[in-house]
Amino acid sequence: MSKVLIIGAGGVGRVVASKCADNPEVFSEIMLASRTLSKCQTIAREVGKGRIQTAQVNADNVPEVVELINRFKPELVINVALPYQDLPIMDACLETGVNYLDTANYEPKDEAKFEYKWQWAYHDKFKEKGIMAVLGCGFDPGVTSIYTAYAAKHHFDELHYLDIVDCNGGDHGKAFATNFNPEINIREITQKGKYWENGKWIETEPHEIKKELNYPEIGTRDSYLIFHEELESLVKNYPTLKRARFWMTFGQEYLTHLRVIQNIGMARIDPVKYKGVDVIPLEFLKYVLPDPGKLGEHYVGETSIGCRIKGIKDGKEKTYYVWNNCSHQKAYKETGTQAVSYTTGVPAMLGAMMVLTKKWNGKGVFNVEEFDPDPFMEKIGEFGLPWQEAANVDLEL
Amino acid sequence: MSKVLIIGAGGVGRVVASKCADNPEVFSEIMLASRTLSKCQTIAREVGKGRIQTAQVNADNVPEVVELINRFKPELVINVALPYQDLPIMDACLETGVNYLDTANYEPKDEAKFEYKWQWAYHDKFKEKGIMAVLGCGFDPGVTSIYTAYAAKHHFDELHYLDIVDCNGGDHGKAFATNFNPEINIREITQKGKYWENGKWIETEPHEIKKELNYPEIGTRDSYLIFHEELESLVKNYPTLKRARFWMTFGQEYLTHLRVIQNIGMARIDPVKYKGVDVIPLEFLKYVLPDPGKLGEHYVGETSIGCRIKGIKDGKEKTYYVWNNCSHQKAYKETGTQAVSYTTGVPAMLGAMMVLTKKWNGKGVFNVEEFDPDPFMEKIGEFGLPWQEAANVDLEL
Repeated sequence: MSKVLIIGAGGVGRVVASKCADNPEVFSEIMLASRTLSKCQTIAREVGKGRIQTAQVNADNVPEVVELINRFKPELVINVALPYQDLPIMDACLETGVNYLDTANYEPKDEAKFEYKWQWAYHDKFKEKGIMAVLGCGFDPGVTSIYTAYAAKHHFDELHYLDIVDCNGGDHGKAFATNFNPEINIREITQKGKYWENGKWIETEPHEIKKELNYPEIGTRDSYLIFHEELESLVKNYPTLKRARFWMTFGQEYLTHLRVIQNIGMARIDPVKYKGVDVIPLEFLKYVLPDPGKLGEHYVGETSIGCRIKGIKDGKEKTYYVWNNCSHQKAYKETGTQAVSYTTGVPAMLGAMMVLTKKWNGKGVFNVEEFDPDPFMEKIGEFGLPWQEAANVDLEL
Repeated sequence: MSKVLIIGAGGVGRVVASKCADNPEVFSEIMLASRTLSKCQTIAREVGKGRIQTAQVNADNVPEVVELINRFKPELVINVALPYQDLPIMDACLETGVNYLDTANYEPKDEAKFEYKWQWAYHDKFKEKGIMAVLGCGFDPGVTSIYTAYAAKHHFDELHYLDIVDCNGGDHGKAFATNFNPEINIREITQKGKYWENGKWIETEPHEIKKELNYPEIGTRDSYLIFHEELESLVKNYPTLKRARFWMTFGQEYLTHLRVIQNIGMARIDPVKYKGVDVIPLEFLKYVLPDPGKLGEHYVGETSIGCRIKGIKDGKEKTYYVWNNCSHQKAYKETGTQAVSYTTGVPAMLGAMMVLTKKWNGKGVFNVEEFDPDPFMEKIGEFGLPWQEAANVDLEL
């Protein structure tokens, strides 16, 4: 019986809260907190099954988070707020001696940098304090890292080539919208591409490398090589990898919109003076674009995310593909939000369950592939994200 | 010997100030005023030939403008500020009994409406006060209206078909930029199209009607039917017109950028809350897009704007085409700004000269085609915008 504090009341927070509320045997008490109390209250009312308490908190402010933790006394904080807020929330956990879990790595607000270095630097402090921090426990990073760990444990002696493939085959019916916070989304996908090959990182121009990949039950989609944060920890934890890449699908219209958003200066993250007020263009964009949390209702189609791996098993070359397909409509029906939030929120809840039931153990800061993948892989299907696998198939890569 | 007050220190204000300073025999004293004093001072220093005084004024504020007029005592106010400011400046002119001239019709800030009704409603008040207001004395409206008046006076007994064609064949080397205030520009060109035919207005979707038109010394360009304000006064003043249309050239990339700007909500003119502050998306866009005033340096190519007219002369059908081509580089060399500002500012200066030298007379509110076109057409070439004409050519329309 454990108390959990969820910080962040966007689409992912909604899914985490809903899923925790479904599992009182593990999550005996749940508190949902965010900057905007009314968002927490709406989620509690709509998907909380009467089991969710709410609170207002500014997650940028360490003393405020500390005060909330001291009041509620959770065993674990699930951070599904903004990536900028990872460090202040980790600071608050350190100060109060409470475990921590998030779904996306910290990035500084003033530069679009996706690196684990800031959070990894907390390892010794968490270790000394005798608590654990679980980093990147959404779908990607998260399930993709656990798929890789599962493949390494059961299917390979050595991993050589890893391609993480992320396809959103859905259609929300809008001219343009992002599937999660547009600020975070656009920061991520407008940066340069980067992949690991032969012991070093190779940088590409944004969307320079494209392949047509075929996704189960979806079909062929233009897929672009982008950098994604789990690559950094996976090449560190699987040093036999000769190459590791990440592919994401984008339609032509989506890319055109992105290109224009950059051309017109709306992807800028430096403040611009407007009538004496500092306005950050990319941050402002969030207020005019469709709310990702509202896309669910008319979203049709599926996401398909997985790992395509080539390596050696018993001296022979082998290929292996493990993936999940998730229906936007099914996710919406269950939690009131689309598959992109759903596929991030469900693993966060299950990761929290792993920590609270001691299936995942340790003192310090960890990426999810460092834990035993089996108890997670056993359960993730019944919580809504069943996986499929295929060995010795054409990986197209 | 006359004193003139110029309000507005953008690209057009720069050209008007420079041209007035060149002609001390008419403009004996010149004051340039705008919200931002430093912009006036830069213009005075760079193109003022030591002849320009400067002042700070908020043109939205009638008492401030009245106070400035009473202090400087001009015979004429040249308004090259924002279209929203036409009415307050006209109010100040009425109160002080000073003549008025502008280059673009009033539009309310909260809806993109391009109609003369608000300014025409001032006719009786200006008449009673014994002063005149000259509306729309830039290039289009302005020279295009005077071309039409010139054609009606010298080439036709009856005008039947009028097509105003506006081509910017220049290249500023930016991915996307507007040639004047982006807020005003985008409001204008994202509205529905409209043209006059057989006694009524016919509305089209934005950019629904396209033709490939050939422009002198430029070549063929995609030209789109849009509504432009001079059509409203021209069909009123030339009731024999069976059809009147306006065409403007846009490249595919320009239209793509426009479409995305609309799709992402950045063309909205209603306020959006951002951290407690009201931000108008389209207005904010101006602060991130390239400054139109800075495009001149690398702008190459020419504009070509003219009137293509079909009508009756001596009982026979006749066609007539009158146009000006203006080089961006030449305009920049002379005034430090590109041809789009230059072609607007020069006619404003010459219109002011027409008023001050009594070539254009009247008490009340007038569109420029209501005056004698001859003295204007005689002079406009020597001030930098020579015109060419051709009769009985294929108008392509």
